[in-house]
Amino acid sequence: MIRISALQMQTAAADIEANLSRIERAAGQAVEAGATLLITPELGVTSYGAGATLHDLAEPADGPIVSRLSEIARRTGVAIVAGFVEKADGTIYNSAVHTDGDDTPVLYRKAYLYGDYERELFTPAPPATCLFHHRGMTLGMLICYDVEFPENVRRLAMAGAELIVVPTATPAGASGTFIAEKMIPVRAFENQIFVAYANNCGTDRDFEYAGQSIIAAPDGSALASAALAEEFLTADIDFGPYAISRRENTYLRDL
Amino acid sequence: MIRISALQMQTAAADIEANLSRIERAAGQAVEAGATLLITPELGVTSYGAGATLHDLAEPADGPIVSRLSEIARRTGVAIVAGFVEKADGTIYNSAVHTDGDDTPVLYRKAYLYGDYERELFTPAPPATCLFHHRGMTLGMLICYDVEFPENVRRLAMAGAELIVVPTATPAGASGTFIAEKMIPVRAFENQIFVAYANNCGTDRDFEYAGQSIIAAPDGSALASAALAEEFLTADIDFGPYAISRRENTYLRDL
Repeated sequence: MIRISALQMQTAAADIEANLSRIERAAGQAVEAGATLLITPELGVTSYGAGATLHDLAEPADGPIVSRLSEIARRTGVAIVAGFVEKADGTIYNSAVHTDGDDTPVLYRKAYLYGDYERELFTPAPPATCLFHHRGMTLGMLICYDVEFPENVRRLAMAGAELIVVPTATPAGASGTFIAEKMIPVRAFENQIFVAYANNCGTDRDFEYAGQSIIAAPDGSALASAALAEEFLTADIDFGPYAISRRENTYLRDL
Repeated sequence: MIRISALQMQTAAADIEANLSRIERAAGQAVEAGATLLITPELGVTSYGAGATLHDLAEPADGPIVSRLSEIARRTGVAIVAGFVEKADGTIYNSAVHTDGDDTPVLYRKAYLYGDYERELFTPAPPATCLFHHRGMTLGMLICYDVEFPENVRRLAMAGAELIVVPTATPAGASGTFIAEKMIPVRAFENQIFVAYANNCGTDRDFEYAGQSIIAAPDGSALASAALAEEFLTADIDFGPYAISRRENTYLRDL
């Protein structure tokens, strides 16, 4: 069993220091909640909707942003998943990192870019099976639109992921609500795993976000879910209560 | 645009004549509703929960059951999707047929058998891309547990299916309700197609069914949905109202 937290976050457009301070404060909230892992939204460090300014904020994965996240994780004992604009290979990725402050940070680059805005700003990465470990559990990582493709979640689950963490920046609207309320629970159910979906909220320079972050359990229930405003969620990731669901729904074995 | 109906049906255990009469009556209801296609539940002709007796009811796809269904379709002008126990290749399949009374009936055999009950009674077929046409639209067919695997729905959608018809016998319980209320709408949404899920209801010799049949639209909304008892659903299958959803959610193009 692990206890995790997710920060549904109102990011400050193109203000890395403000966003890192907010994440640092959330790590403190996670300590108080007894959680050992904090998941924050897509591009939460740099902000999502700042247009071409994002290119000026891009850093390599061993730059000051990830160093600062690792320092917060080391000091608080809370591992952090956070998104930032990454400069590498002579291009720009929409990336997220997992750092526990001790081990080498784990980097994931978004494979499925959504819409013209992202395709103009970022290079898509080849779909990757990003797995890491946290206190005995195997976790996988996807970013936003990636999780809407069942193929990506299946690939991680077949590789052993028990919890998939998903920083996201899903815009407000009917599709965003449907994805949060129905698709994320179905991704959990159809693989009998946990999915933690941490969204941006409110507005930034360019977008209004759906909020409605959710931590979904193997039976498709919501262990925790947020409304529209900034919110801090906590849930226990424990297969114990889902033995019946996992016995009835043997998708991974039957596939 | 086509108008379809789905019969959520209380089958009579192992009573082919009673079930064919019920389907014949439903074809008349479809005529009254202006529908040209009627979808009925998994094994609706032979019944689902009759155990080894089902082997005695098995027929080849050119036997009296399908002949009778074709005769009803020809007489009423309503094409019929119906499930029966099929004897072929020296074994027994859980099959369904589409017949419009004119063209050669289209046969589909369930690929993913659920649980010990089905695995003892039936032979699984290799996953097949079963497509057919109805008044200018391309339809696909799956049976029950098949549709719970996103891979099967994706394969049909990528092959051009605009509506997938799914005879089912989903048992009552939390999982059955979750599948009807969330998974079927997500299968429609993640492919931006229509899904018509026609369930058994009530009880037969061995099982209690979830009912809750649903016809889901590309935006994940329910065009029609049933409660627990026998019910007759009708919906118009028309992409017109879903232009925004299909423009926003371009999964098949982005995959």
